[in-house]
Amino acid sequence: MRFGPAILERADALAAITERPGMLARSYLTPQHRQAGERIRGWMREAGMQAEFDALGNVVGRYEGTNPRAPAVLTGSHMDTVVDAGKYDGLFGVLAPIACVADLHARGKRLPFPLEVVAFGDEEGVRFGTSMMGSKALAGRLDAAVLELKDAAGVTVREALAAFGGDAGALAGLRRSRDAIRLYVETHIEQGPVLLEEGLAVGVVTSIAGSSRARVGVRGEAGHAGTVPMAMRRDALAAACEMVLALERHCRASSGRVVGTVGKLAVAQGGAINVIPGDVEFTIDVRSGEDALRRAAVAAIEAALREVAAARGVALEWTPLQELAAAPCDPAEQERLAAAIQAHDLPVRRLPSGAGHDAMQFAGLVPIAMLFVRCGNGGISHNPRETLAVEDAEVATAVLMRYLESLG
Amino acid sequence: MRFGPAILERADALAAITERPGMLARSYLTPQHRQAGERIRGWMREAGMQAEFDALGNVVGRYEGTNPRAPAVLTGSHMDTVVDAGKYDGLFGVLAPIACVADLHARGKRLPFPLEVVAFGDEEGVRFGTSMMGSKALAGRLDAAVLELKDAAGVTVREALAAFGGDAGALAGLRRSRDAIRLYVETHIEQGPVLLEEGLAVGVVTSIAGSSRARVGVRGEAGHAGTVPMAMRRDALAAACEMVLALERHCRASSGRVVGTVGKLAVAQGGAINVIPGDVEFTIDVRSGEDALRRAAVAAIEAALREVAAARGVALEWTPLQELAAAPCDPAEQERLAAAIQAHDLPVRRLPSGAGHDAMQFAGLVPIAMLFVRCGNGGISHNPRETLAVEDAEVATAVLMRYLESLG
Repeated sequence: MRFGPAILERADALAAITERPGMLARSYLTPQHRQAGERIRGWMREAGMQAEFDALGNVVGRYEGTNPRAPAVLTGSHMDTVVDAGKYDGLFGVLAPIACVADLHARGKRLPFPLEVVAFGDEEGVRFGTSMMGSKALAGRLDAAVLELKDAAGVTVREALAAFGGDAGALAGLRRSRDAIRLYVETHIEQGPVLLEEGLAVGVVTSIAGSSRARVGVRGEAGHAGTVPMAMRRDALAAACEMVLALERHCRASSGRVVGTVGKLAVAQGGAINVIPGDVEFTIDVRSGEDALRRAAVAAIEAALREVAAARGVALEWTPLQELAAAPCDPAEQERLAAAIQAHDLPVRRLPSGAGHDAMQFAGLVPIAMLFVRCGNGGISHNPRETLAVEDAEVATAVLMRYLESLG
Repeated sequence: MRFGPAILERADALAAITERPGMLARSYLTPQHRQAGERIRGWMREAGMQAEFDALGNVVGRYEGTNPRAPAVLTGSHMDTVVDAGKYDGLFGVLAPIACVADLHARGKRLPFPLEVVAFGDEEGVRFGTSMMGSKALAGRLDAAVLELKDAAGVTVREALAAFGGDAGALAGLRRSRDAIRLYVETHIEQGPVLLEEGLAVGVVTSIAGSSRARVGVRGEAGHAGTVPMAMRRDALAAACEMVLALERHCRASSGRVVGTVGKLAVAQGGAINVIPGDVEFTIDVRSGEDALRRAAVAAIEAALREVAAARGVALEWTPLQELAAAPCDPAEQERLAAAIQAHDLPVRRLPSGAGHDAMQFAGLVPIAMLFVRCGNGGISHNPRETLAVEDAEVATAVLMRYLESLG
């Protein structure tokens, strides 16, 4: 194998750089961010790239092409992690293209365009509560107001950046002009079970799902669990349960095109074993690669919930929290990725990404493309039990290599 | 009025002793339990009783009779509350007999037997999930294993008792011998709509419904809300919701003879908006005046839950928490209460109690009797909108007084 073993070794080495003993946790603008970035910069330089931290703490490596004035191809992913993270989320999308450049360099080969590999400093948003600061800055979509956001200790992004050795004043200058970039391509672990279930090492992402989030309040009538006849109850929990199942039913009926989740649900004050719940709140998260489908699903779910509420004589409060549009991947680049997969004698599986990724920040600005690699262990991610098989790392990197070389 | 206004004032004073600002919540072995108990002990002493906290935190007042060797008449109810409670549930059954004793004392009258008024420290079971610890102990029915039960913070009953100034080692000594007790009589707000609907201030309880309680754990698989297809999920919350509705369906089908409630339901660690819940716990409370019906209903509900779990590929943990048999009230004491009501020129309404009460712990040991007083505002209880009319407090206390004086 050309790529897999070295990539997994490097992922292990980076996983040892953590803020918390006994688990992987590495957030934006910490000494561990600096340390991991320096390792990555070193590997980029070894691979023949010019590499530096930029003003926001992203590490950017550049491998010049035969035509230095051609628009650059951008690739990469993030080097920060969630708390108690897996080793491959983000990092694989940094290590795979470095391995490709090293391979090109060893072969003395240059592509017709400059290739830039970026390790973004912030994607998860763990420290400051806002995510994808690195990719937003390069895409020109980072609002300078985020510089005043504070972490749990009250430190602002601006202050943390100064301590890191970054330069808040240079934020606007990080923006890449549309003309200088040909496309953005990202490789990422799937973080789900689809490729695993189907026995496939890689897949082509069709779009990054948009999402709608809402908070729902159900107001019934509390009462004594022994004295209120079933027919006279206005039980907020039973009503909420019927609503959760209505949401599930709607999403199940979408043939895999919409997913919906109730992740939080709580009885007011925790409830009591002998009290009919009078007040329940829960959250809704609905995602789809297709915005129209997602919006229709959310409208249908809200209508279904209002029907449940009316039938049970409870009041419903629906508060929208967030609307994010889907980011479609470029059809021509999907075809090119598919061709690279087929060249490895593998079937082409197209699938949406339910999770958000740095790539979505570049959507609408330049063509975007994403290659998913199979996530082992049931597809679990954001968890130390996340796994990536060395064979899959090999195949995904070889496919990326072929894709890059196919870009004329 | 002799009794009503003062009783309502005392209920207001006790309602101000709460763990949570803005609502009444007072659970077992808290500083608020201590504070409320001290107020009650003070009123008992003012009324001419000897009064102390016992080893479990119950407050016991004793008014000696003309024959100190006669078996005592026990009366009382509980001083703990549910979360966001009404002011009269439990407390009325403590305050009414204190008012009776104060009246006897003012008249210089003693009954032919000692009268003991008990304010039980735990009836609702909010803190440790097991109820009626106080009355169980006096009836000799408290299993010492409950001392190891933990509250939400991991504190055991034993530890809480030590901090309160109680004495776990003296538990067995609280047991009253059958020969030393003549009967147990309790006055309580109905907590339902029957007397209200019929325009009656008081009623004679015929029997107290039995109850079964269980804790249910649902173990599915946590996952990313965006990346796990609906068909591959093992969502513990969706499964729990289907279970809640199965319980509701079973109880609705009982023609009013069984009621069932899920009062608490929680996602582990509170959940997150973008995470499929992997772990959910909820409680079950099933009641009926007929023990065989209740047992059959619980078995059918457990079977239905296991079916849901199997169909959804989640694990189910069913932990029985409590089985209380229905408790019939003594026929002769029902007659005596009826006579006391008739002496006030009121019609006699006999009705069962859907709620459990401390009285049921004494059933089978000594004769038990219960007097219900009308609950206003639709019969609502376990709710801050619970009401008790001052006129009804007056009538119920006068009936209790007459009943006690009629015990030869």
